[in-house]
Amino acid sequence: MSLSSWNDTPTKQSILDFMTSTNDKKSPEYIPLSERVAAFDNDGTLWVEQPAPAQTELLLGKLVEQVKADPSLAQEDPYKGIVNQDSVFLQALAQQVPEAIIAFLSGVGKAWEGTTPEAYEAEVQAFLDHTKHPRYDRPWTDLVYLPMLELFDLLSGNGWRIFVCSGGGRDFMRVYSEEILGIFRENVIGSAPEFAYLDGRLVRQNALHGNIALGPGKPEHIYARTGRTAIFAGGNGDVDLEMLQEARFRLVVVHDDEEREYVVTAGAEKLLAAGEQGGWTMVSMKDDWKTVFSK
Amino acid sequence: MSLSSWNDTPTKQSILDFMTSTNDKKSPEYIPLSERVAAFDNDGTLWVEQPAPAQTELLLGKLVEQVKADPSLAQEDPYKGIVNQDSVFLQALAQQVPEAIIAFLSGVGKAWEGTTPEAYEAEVQAFLDHTKHPRYDRPWTDLVYLPMLELFDLLSGNGWRIFVCSGGGRDFMRVYSEEILGIFRENVIGSAPEFAYLDGRLVRQNALHGNIALGPGKPEHIYARTGRTAIFAGGNGDVDLEMLQEARFRLVVVHDDEEREYVVTAGAEKLLAAGEQGGWTMVSMKDDWKTVFSK
Repeated sequence: MSLSSWNDTPTKQSILDFMTSTNDKKSPEYIPLSERVAAFDNDGTLWVEQPAPAQTELLLGKLVEQVKADPSLAQEDPYKGIVNQDSVFLQALAQQVPEAIIAFLSGVGKAWEGTTPEAYEAEVQAFLDHTKHPRYDRPWTDLVYLPMLELFDLLSGNGWRIFVCSGGGRDFMRVYSEEILGIFRENVIGSAPEFAYLDGRLVRQNALHGNIALGPGKPEHIYARTGRTAIFAGGNGDVDLEMLQEARFRLVVVHDDEEREYVVTAGAEKLLAAGEQGGWTMVSMKDDWKTVFSK
Repeated sequence: MSLSSWNDTPTKQSILDFMTSTNDKKSPEYIPLSERVAAFDNDGTLWVEQPAPAQTELLLGKLVEQVKADPSLAQEDPYKGIVNQDSVFLQALAQQVPEAIIAFLSGVGKAWEGTTPEAYEAEVQAFLDHTKHPRYDRPWTDLVYLPMLELFDLLSGNGWRIFVCSGGGRDFMRVYSEEILGIFRENVIGSAPEFAYLDGRLVRQNALHGNIALGPGKPEHIYARTGRTAIFAGGNGDVDLEMLQEARFRLVVVHDDEEREYVVTAGAEKLLAAGEQGGWTMVSMKDDWKTVFSK
């Protein structure tokens, strides 16, 4: 049954109505198949991002390892903020403040420079296999939102191509996107390093490929990747605002479920205001979702 | 009928055999669905590229317009070579010599800087609608190779996702890829400018997004786009060599049909040698194709 873990609320109905009207060739709302591109943020939209996005833990651990190998790094950004557990820096990182992310990525670029895709993927897989969420004590990949997977099924069934566009690492997500989200690797868009093809193999470079996929970077990445902007878009934070503004169906995942998940407004103030004001589809995790997690 | 415009030669059989063995779960050749990524060069592989790739004419015309608007440009590269009809420069361009392409692209970047996607697409569409091939006196989009479109159908029918990876402009190809090639825009990979999202719209920048998709740039672009290298790859020039080396099924379109098309080896010497030596699938347009063009 379509969207079976969604409660029968106006939110669910607005999604179903959009499917109906955009399929109706006689409706002004009709959307040709070729234009049916949907894009979703990842952390906080498709799975838990509290107390910090899953990837943050992997990256912090990697940077700490680097400092152990070369203690002089502890005096430099971004290592300084991490080693000293600087709460301002760490909070900015958790809220995906672009400046913090860029500083952080400079360390990340260095950490994996010269790595092959296979080696990086093996590290991510080991992290996913062995790390548990601090509150739920379960693998992060169990903490995907079931209602969003059902939404993916509904969209696919109606001819939509689904893309995940995250400020987080493209190559991190691609390790689990097929098994966990049912999304082919090529449909994952995100911040990513350059790769060079040298001596017959791909090698990771210490340079960003394009910009980071946050804020205006989201429509930029989606356009570069698809030749279009997404008509259906979903997000949960201020860094998703531009992606949703470009869309026609705008879905905001509102973290208002203290019992089953988290209550969060920090880093989402502008999006929540724009959504309330614009009459966007505001998904209350508390009221609209019967079930939260996929496992 | 599958591959009906291919003659019944060992070439056609090798393609059909590959489909059979890679579908057979008991075969060591079996390929899981998720990994079925195919990539093809565009000019000379999917449509005519003689006497020069279609896009070259559009770009040359645009640069000549620029010189008319600002005659001082005629002293600078790449305008100098174009205005003076410098045969060495023009030939290097036609053969996709990376240095010539980079010089050329610096002019192209300037020409369309600040343009929106819609405005650029309208220019390309007008070019495609009004320009005829000098020899065939027909629109370029009539000069797509029918056997390659049938190969696309065969691959799609066997669960392969098809990508076009061209040294030429990604956004040029995306204008006609859906109608003419049956390939969604997002499956077109190619050299491309950066776009910035400014004041609520995408605007073309005078900077290349990543590198150009030639030579080692092809596996780099394919990996960035898909998270994989292509297992099935087709090309016709030396700039496709690395893409084919990374693949398992390597198809080379050999231009040996003077009557119906062209005889060309310039710019393909290394690829032809590697293909002959390695036992790759060498497609003779003359002997393997019953029909050449789609219209």
